[in-house]
Amino acid sequence: MSINYDHFSSLGIALVVSGPSGTGKTTVCEKLLEQNKNLNFSISCTTRKPREGEVDGEDYYFISVEEFKRRVENSEFLEYAEVHDNYYGTLKTEVTDKVINGEDVLIDIDVQGMRQMRKASSGDSVLEKCTSYVFIAPPSYPELEKRLRNRGTETEDVVSRRMLNARKELKAWNEYQYLIINDEVDKAVNRLQSVITAVSIETSRLTPVADWPYV
Amino acid sequence: MSINYDHFSSLGIALVVSGPSGTGKTTVCEKLLEQNKNLNFSISCTTRKPREGEVDGEDYYFISVEEFKRRVENSEFLEYAEVHDNYYGTLKTEVTDKVINGEDVLIDIDVQGMRQMRKASSGDSVLEKCTSYVFIAPPSYPELEKRLRNRGTETEDVVSRRMLNARKELKAWNEYQYLIINDEVDKAVNRLQSVITAVSIETSRLTPVADWPYV
Repeated sequence: MSINYDHFSSLGIALVVSGPSGTGKTTVCEKLLEQNKNLNFSISCTTRKPREGEVDGEDYYFISVEEFKRRVENSEFLEYAEVHDNYYGTLKTEVTDKVINGEDVLIDIDVQGMRQMRKASSGDSVLEKCTSYVFIAPPSYPELEKRLRNRGTETEDVVSRRMLNARKELKAWNEYQYLIINDEVDKAVNRLQSVITAVSIETSRLTPVADWPYV
Repeated sequence: MSINYDHFSSLGIALVVSGPSGTGKTTVCEKLLEQNKNLNFSISCTTRKPREGEVDGEDYYFISVEEFKRRVENSEFLEYAEVHDNYYGTLKTEVTDKVINGEDVLIDIDVQGMRQMRKASSGDSVLEKCTSYVFIAPPSYPELEKRLRNRGTETEDVVSRRMLNARKELKAWNEYQYLIINDEVDKAVNRLQSVITAVSIETSRLTPVADWPYV
């Protein structure tokens, strides 16, 4: 946990963050990571080839299709998906190893990934205790469209597809525990940090060590 | 709620805060109230006579013993207690009227009061939905003793009694949802504000208005 409560031991927090493309989720997460040194992105597995400069175990765990499939068979993934003929997935151990070590992990996945992860975590006492689900939404559809267009890199076709997808994803907002409207980046970052701070001082997460209440 | 989520309606938050004498709870609460304009102390009823400068309906609701007892009989109190021959209590309506109006209320009561309030709120959908319970604790017993002595106004006898009482109250920490260790005032204020911010964006508290997901 990010707060030093000397008389307690506590698991780290696994923060699942979803939000449609164009919401500003990536900017919010990166700003948060800058200011919160106990928080790191979870590292995904992928079957795609490393790009120039990408480091195995830092950017991704680069594994073969065979190994990926074997691990799927073994139920080692919290969630995975095939995108453009490559597999991407989050290993259970990637999350549990870190939270058991007291580190907080940010897991950036979409609504489908969240649903898979909920299922895969069910019955796992560590994962059930340490995971919080946050949905990031744009302040309005017109604002979302503006943000997608302002990127300047998307074709009309891509913008339309993203808007349609956003409409679908936004309907899942209440499958999450917290809703962050990204009206201003700094406010959204502050809300996300507030979730981490509040969750980290939930009494249900704190295990007193021998000298509490104080000797 | 303190955050403007235009597409949602939401109840205010009733924040119950307890903590043994000497914890610094009052300082933390007052600092928080200074920076959070949507948050106010709940106003208690009392049977004691107003002191110089005290205003009815601002400092307290000053009522007669007969009226207090009648309201106790009517189950109008969330909690009440007799202290030095005077009654003090928090009316249900004091909290529900404010939260229904979207205001956040800080309720400063002791462990006994919290237990009474939990019972009195049980089955009341507004109170159950809007109330969060926070316990403020000192970083250690020696530090608590130091703080009590540093006031300079307490006799040895009072210090001993407060230390004994603190030991008793601290055992109730996990009857609350959040534990705030007051190691530094600013950190404690920030933790309390984080609880308010996080609770206010819990999806279970947010009711979408007709145009969500956005028209």
